[in-house]
Amino acid sequence: MRLYLALAILLANAEAAGPDEAIVAARAFRDANGPEIIADFAALLRIPNVAEDPDGLRRNAAHIAAIFEARGFIMRALEIEGAAPLVVGERKVAGATRTIALYAHYDGQPVAAADWTTPPFEPALYSRSKSDGGERIAFPREGASVDADWRLYARSASDDKAPMIALAAALDALDRAGIAPTSNILLVFDGEEEAGSDHLPQYLRDHRALFEDVDLWLFCDGPKHQSGAPQLVFGVRGVTGLEITVYGPNRGLHSGHYGNWAPGPGWRLARLLATMKDDDGRVLIKDFYKSATPLTKADRKAVAAMPAIDGDLRWIFGLAETEMENAPLAERILLPALNLHGLKSAEVGAAAANVIPPTATASLGLRLVPGNDPDEMLDLVEAHIRRQGYFIVREDPDAKTRAAHPLIAKIARASGYPAVRSSIDDRAFAPLIAALRAAAGDRLVLAPMLGGSLPLYMFREASNAPIVILPIANFDNNQHAADENIRIGDLFDGVDAYAAALTMK
Amino acid sequence: MRLYLALAILLANAEAAGPDEAIVAARAFRDANGPEIIADFAALLRIPNVAEDPDGLRRNAAHIAAIFEARGFIMRALEIEGAAPLVVGERKVAGATRTIALYAHYDGQPVAAADWTTPPFEPALYSRSKSDGGERIAFPREGASVDADWRLYARSASDDKAPMIALAAALDALDRAGIAPTSNILLVFDGEEEAGSDHLPQYLRDHRALFEDVDLWLFCDGPKHQSGAPQLVFGVRGVTGLEITVYGPNRGLHSGHYGNWAPGPGWRLARLLATMKDDDGRVLIKDFYKSATPLTKADRKAVAAMPAIDGDLRWIFGLAETEMENAPLAERILLPALNLHGLKSAEVGAAAANVIPPTATASLGLRLVPGNDPDEMLDLVEAHIRRQGYFIVREDPDAKTRAAHPLIAKIARASGYPAVRSSIDDRAFAPLIAALRAAAGDRLVLAPMLGGSLPLYMFREASNAPIVILPIANFDNNQHAADENIRIGDLFDGVDAYAAALTMK
Repeated sequence: MRLYLALAILLANAEAAGPDEAIVAARAFRDANGPEIIADFAALLRIPNVAEDPDGLRRNAAHIAAIFEARGFIMRALEIEGAAPLVVGERKVAGATRTIALYAHYDGQPVAAADWTTPPFEPALYSRSKSDGGERIAFPREGASVDADWRLYARSASDDKAPMIALAAALDALDRAGIAPTSNILLVFDGEEEAGSDHLPQYLRDHRALFEDVDLWLFCDGPKHQSGAPQLVFGVRGVTGLEITVYGPNRGLHSGHYGNWAPGPGWRLARLLATMKDDDGRVLIKDFYKSATPLTKADRKAVAAMPAIDGDLRWIFGLAETEMENAPLAERILLPALNLHGLKSAEVGAAAANVIPPTATASLGLRLVPGNDPDEMLDLVEAHIRRQGYFIVREDPDAKTRAAHPLIAKIARASGYPAVRSSIDDRAFAPLIAALRAAAGDRLVLAPMLGGSLPLYMFREASNAPIVILPIANFDNNQHAADENIRIGDLFDGVDAYAAALTMK
Repeated sequence: MRLYLALAILLANAEAAGPDEAIVAARAFRDANGPEIIADFAALLRIPNVAEDPDGLRRNAAHIAAIFEARGFIMRALEIEGAAPLVVGERKVAGATRTIALYAHYDGQPVAAADWTTPPFEPALYSRSKSDGGERIAFPREGASVDADWRLYARSASDDKAPMIALAAALDALDRAGIAPTSNILLVFDGEEEAGSDHLPQYLRDHRALFEDVDLWLFCDGPKHQSGAPQLVFGVRGVTGLEITVYGPNRGLHSGHYGNWAPGPGWRLARLLATMKDDDGRVLIKDFYKSATPLTKADRKAVAAMPAIDGDLRWIFGLAETEMENAPLAERILLPALNLHGLKSAEVGAAAANVIPPTATASLGLRLVPGNDPDEMLDLVEAHIRRQGYFIVREDPDAKTRAAHPLIAKIARASGYPAVRSSIDDRAFAPLIAALRAAAGDRLVLAPMLGGSLPLYMFREASNAPIVILPIANFDNNQHAADENIRIGDLFDGVDAYAAALTMK
């Protein structure tokens, strides 16, 4: 009887509560429960989540489903044979007239474990960033205070398990304070984002009914603005890539006996790559910049209003100059990019041998903007390679092919997807912008584009609802690289942001 | 009593015996004992011999000393602290008025075990070359016949343990036939050749008396001529090298968020390397070809007389064209070479991540000809890199250095040594040429230079005796690369060649 009465009071309060109250509740909750939030996070980060380990991905999916089942969600693991499960969850809110869908992904980038100072799947807490001289510290005991500058190191600490833990804490904070969300909530947790989300379109098609009532898509991924300010981002670059292998002799040859007779594949690759991008960073491939959709007036205005950060970033990243004579990052990411992710030919360092290697390989990534078709952009790169005199193959060449063509390039094209950009002045975004300003004030940055890629195009195809990205990770999180980390203060600010978003008017 | 009589008869025979009889004895011996020679060789090849494994090198040294102690040599392992032992052995021959020194090395090139189809230190016998469809076969039992086209695969099967086993068999053949060598024999087995023979000059200085009576240095290393013919080689290229690391951001950056803003180190390295060598294979570094000593008339005549092999080699190695518009290999190796041994930046293939890597590294090797000073040649390369706008460092740059210089190259210079070329018409070579012609007839090739490198300069400094190289390995032995091998027929022809050389008039 007493319990029912208490619940009735809470529900009565709940109707009156909005972002301001939610943010107070979130701050109180994470002040009181910091060590538990960090411990829960570490438990999730211990489960390996790389594409080559499907069992690890499934264990992540099960762990995450349990987290949200405990918070009142009906969770399901959708399945396609050969794919990582798409984990979805629903929580209906009495009286809610709107459904918001929150997307995050539980898979992580591949790890080159040798490059990590602590193992990628053994979460390690540091007093501050390792690169700022942080020292390893023990995980805090219950009731201990937590420092905002602490860093938790592990693969996916920021990209992209942090939103899941912050969201779980926000839900706990609201539930304990008796504040109800103002929207029905649909969770969508992808297990293949870093591998290109190949099965997501089919998941969305196969379960169309799940998504048709969504009123707003909130994408929980990516880093905050480099100024440290929270941001809402209204678009993402698309992505594709290719791997180029060029050939020397069909076996490794002694570099003394055959050196300056047998052509070296590394020289060929270097000369080929040198034709693709100039010293300033301008891509030299014909028509590479041609198909990009021009920016709107609102986009240009938003870019102009973004905080100036380039000088600081150059210092932080140890760069005397950046591309195109220090052109601003906010402008550069509005253009398609050609990135060289990796180079390999035989060995360097102590393992190098006196050999003319048989092959040299470059792994190239493209980032795309609205207007760029992924396949057409790869066609442009291939046409450029052909213009340099290369015969293009899809498999290693046989003896006849080798004898016929001095320059042979094997090209393996990656799957990819296009960019998406929403209109910043779409009225559907207004309640969310207001809620996040309640948490962050005028610091909130409205950015037309994220430099990184998310498969937003799939949701645009599956649903008419507007799409926006709410990142919570510190920008210096080493996303996609060794020593990925989250700053604890940013994780906790994320709790506030989600609490505000879940209670927007 | 009977034994003494037999020995007296043998010694009487021995005085009359020369290369012709020795070759008959060698052929009879290896026809009868092929399986045992192969088994002895496999036992030696099972002992790992890479520079990073000093214990393995010592086990090789001990094993080799035992082989020659069993054949009447007084063996010693000379020592310098921190160095692999120099294994030396002496066998005096009654009445001999000449001492020949035979050099070989027991260390091998580093192995990238993942590239081998059978493990580098588990010798594997094949019916013929793996690349010609050879199949793995069991080692033959005693008394079984042996096929000349068999291949034995292992690190150092050709470079450079083969000469040791062929020499041991030649000694057995002579001893069993009662044929005495015509020269005193000094064995010199280096354990650091593939690492640059850094301690060899000191060994030669510290033990000068050992070497002062040498009348002829016979270097047992390298491959036979590519025509398959045996050869004597009167010079070697020198060698040096350097490793160049260029820099991007001081940590891996997400290629979406920072792609076409942060400069990629792979692009920089590609553009730098592209300035060093043109499409035809011409080195573009200023003065790279300037210091080379011109060829003598005898050298030019010998080059002109060498068998034509380039077309066959291009087909075998899968090359439609070779450098400088198919200029002959025999001419190309008379020039200094700039080889690209390895390239590395982050990862390619399945391990590639969407990252702008912090560094890109190239491992470069130089091959030198008479007149080239190793240090001066590296100076030319460094000056070229400076002319491309690079600031050169010896350690990874700190933040201040990074902020001051857009283009930074770390250069690690390898130790090296100069080329050596003897005069083909030196009269000291005449008895050896005659002995080898007894085994090989007119097929014997006289080559001014080996493309590969041996530390002959050290012996030229330590001794006035003429120097010549007698290689026995098949040219397609994958020396320095994965799947190194020896063709059994070539190993056995080497037994004949050593038997002839040991009995030259």
